[in-house]
Amino acid sequence: MPKPSSVTVLGLGPMGRALAGAFLDAGLRTTVWNRTPGRDLDLKERGAISAASAADAVAASPLTVVCVVNYDAADTFLRTEPVTDALKGRTVVNFSSDSPDRARRAADWAAEHGIRYLDGAIMTPITTIGTPHAVFLHSGPEDLYAEHRPALDALGGTHTHLGADSGRAAAYDIALLDIFWTATAGYVHALALARAEGITARELAPFAQGIGAILPPLFAEWADDIDEGTYSGEGNPLTSSVSSMAHIVHTAEAHGIDSAVLRAAEGQARRAVGLGHGTDGITRLTELLGRR
Amino acid sequence: MPKPSSVTVLGLGPMGRALAGAFLDAGLRTTVWNRTPGRDLDLKERGAISAASAADAVAASPLTVVCVVNYDAADTFLRTEPVTDALKGRTVVNFSSDSPDRARRAADWAAEHGIRYLDGAIMTPITTIGTPHAVFLHSGPEDLYAEHRPALDALGGTHTHLGADSGRAAAYDIALLDIFWTATAGYVHALALARAEGITARELAPFAQGIGAILPPLFAEWADDIDEGTYSGEGNPLTSSVSSMAHIVHTAEAHGIDSAVLRAAEGQARRAVGLGHGTDGITRLTELLGRR
Ligand SMILES: NC(=O)c1ccc[n+]([C@@H]2O[C@H](COP(=O)([O-])OP(=O)(O)OC[C@H]3O[C@@H](n4cnc5c(N)ncnc54)[C@H](OP(=O)(O)O)[C@@H]3O)[C@@H](O)[C@H]2O)c1
Ligand SMILES: NC(=O)c1ccc[n+]([C@@H]2O[C@H](COP(=O)([O-])OP(=O)(O)OC[C@H]3O[C@@H](n4cnc5c(N)ncnc54)[C@H](OP(=O)(O)O)[C@@H]3O)[C@@H](O)[C@H]2O)c1
Repeated sequence: MPKPSSVTVLGLGPMGRALAGAFLDAGLRTTVWNRTPGRDLDLKERGAISAASAADAVAASPLTVVCVVNYDAADTFLRTEPVTDALKGRTVVNFSSDSPDRARRAADWAAEHGIRYLDGAIMTPITTIGTPHAVFLHSGPEDLYAEHRPALDALGGTHTHLGADSGRAAAYDIALLDIFWTATAGYVHALALARAEGITARELAPFAQGIGAILPPLFAEWADDIDEGTYSGEGNPLTSSVSSMAHIVHTAEAHGIDSAVLRAAEGQARRAVGLGHGTDGITRLTELLGRR
Repeated sequence: MPKPSSVTVLGLGPMGRALAGAFLDAGLRTTVWNRTPGRDLDLKERGAISAASAADAVAASPLTVVCVVNYDAADTFLRTEPVTDALKGRTVVNFSSDSPDRARRAADWAAEHGIRYLDGAIMTPITTIGTPHAVFLHSGPEDLYAEHRPALDALGGTHTHLGADSGRAAAYDIALLDIFWTATAGYVHALALARAEGITARELAPFAQGIGAILPPLFAEWADDIDEGTYSGEGNPLTSSVSSMAHIVHTAEAHGIDSAVLRAAEGQARRAVGLGHGTDGITRLTELLGRR
């Protein structure tokens, strides 16, 4: 396998800049472009080549990495004649977050235009890029993934190919981001509630980290419980969860704090109790939320 | 300090049983009682004394630990004449979850009846009780806490006294449970979404554990950001979060999955963007959710 030599990065938000920086650190000839000019100043100082247009940028490398806010944003430059033409026979790895169906439609578009296409997802913050802590997911043709793996390895971290279905990385991505954003919404709400009770964020944080630490083993335990359809509430029945959620919502709202997120969770849990699942665990919701 | 010799446990749900079991393992004379009889069979085999009534149970020990679903449940037996009388001059540690104002009102009731009162909270699952992984929070009179600390130590884990305000342990408790239940609601929803995309819980779990692992360091970073009022979106602006949440809600709802929880979070984030905070981070919500 020849050592990868050059790469193009389209999109220089926080994540695009981190990716371009990691490619530069790995010694790749790195061409960059962003819709809004001027985002590449520090990257240029570090040796990046600043392209005048997206078409010029993609023409400079066999591999183009796209990392913008979503597929609507990516399409504003990818689905233009000059860029589509320049990409013919080249490879795109799209790290922009979007839904699985958008990823599949992008793969179809690429196939129609002779563009080789992989869909990717980045599951860790910008600070992990170029370190062993980064986590990347990929889907699309296996051989194409194998061919570009050396270049992708320049980004550090672990890379997992999830299969040929182009939508698979996006499916994992949205499920994992669902956990991330929901947990995050819980944390910022908890800090608003703590503040109203005279507890600073820094006072709560060490204990919040403790809660964060008990989640991963519970995630594994509950995954077994769910795949086996047990939905066990042995250690923690839904009736208890509902009571606990109600106190939180009550206290937060009594302080004038918007509690729509946990209120919605309480409603789902209470409905499960109402359907006769009070002695089951909260894992029962996995089955109920999507019931037809 | 004399070695503690006996303790009473009222409430034998999963957690009450775990507490009683830990006291027995530590060699304390342990008296138990539960509203519904028959929950103490295995504990009796292990040496527990089964009391015929809550009043008999509290009369058996200088220290009574209460652990039921909430304070309404606790009050059904604590606030009865025989129990209140029997508790006079004795100590209650109430580990039932409830709101800070309920904990404060319970302390007032106890003071009126000459009952010594500590409020506590347990922040870890039943499997941690009696191990170094258990986390207990306490509030109420410092000297009372010091006096009963040897008995509490029989429960294992770390114990933190948060101050004389009886509501303080409950305030930490609800803020921390807010994180726990919201994150949990996110996980079960993510698994419903994954299932609809043909991904099993066991397939997603290792990556979900990865998400769980990135939360604790972010919690610490965001706590500084929030206490300093920076609300920085440098690495991850709210505009990006909103886009990401929208794809998740869109995909889940297109599969017929109830997405009220993340939909509520998306609404809060979108409102923050609308108020001009699009380049801030999601930490901005801590300030906005409780704005008067
Ligand atoms: N930041 C993280 O920690 C992180 C972690 C994992 C995954 N991700 C994912 O990585 C992707 C990029 O995220 P990010 O953090 O770099 O920030 P972002 O705010 O999601 O994306 C910013 C990038 O999108 C471009 N963009 C937005 N609207 C556009 C449009 N209509 N046309 C063309 N370009 C447009 C921006 O260009 P302008 O400069 O011209 O606005 C900029 O290059 C996202 O999908 C995100 O979910 C981020
Ligand atoms: N389980 C955990 O992992 C965990 C972790 C941390 C904290 N906690 C907290 O520990 C406390 C106890 O939890 P748990 O897990 O043991 O289960 P739970 O379902 O919250 O509580 C069950 C206990 O509450 C009693 N109870 C319910 N309603 C009652 C009423 N109206 N009158 C008298 N007693 C009543 C039950 O008695 P019957 O048997 O008669 O119904 C049983 O003893 C809760 O506040 C919970 O938040 C639990």
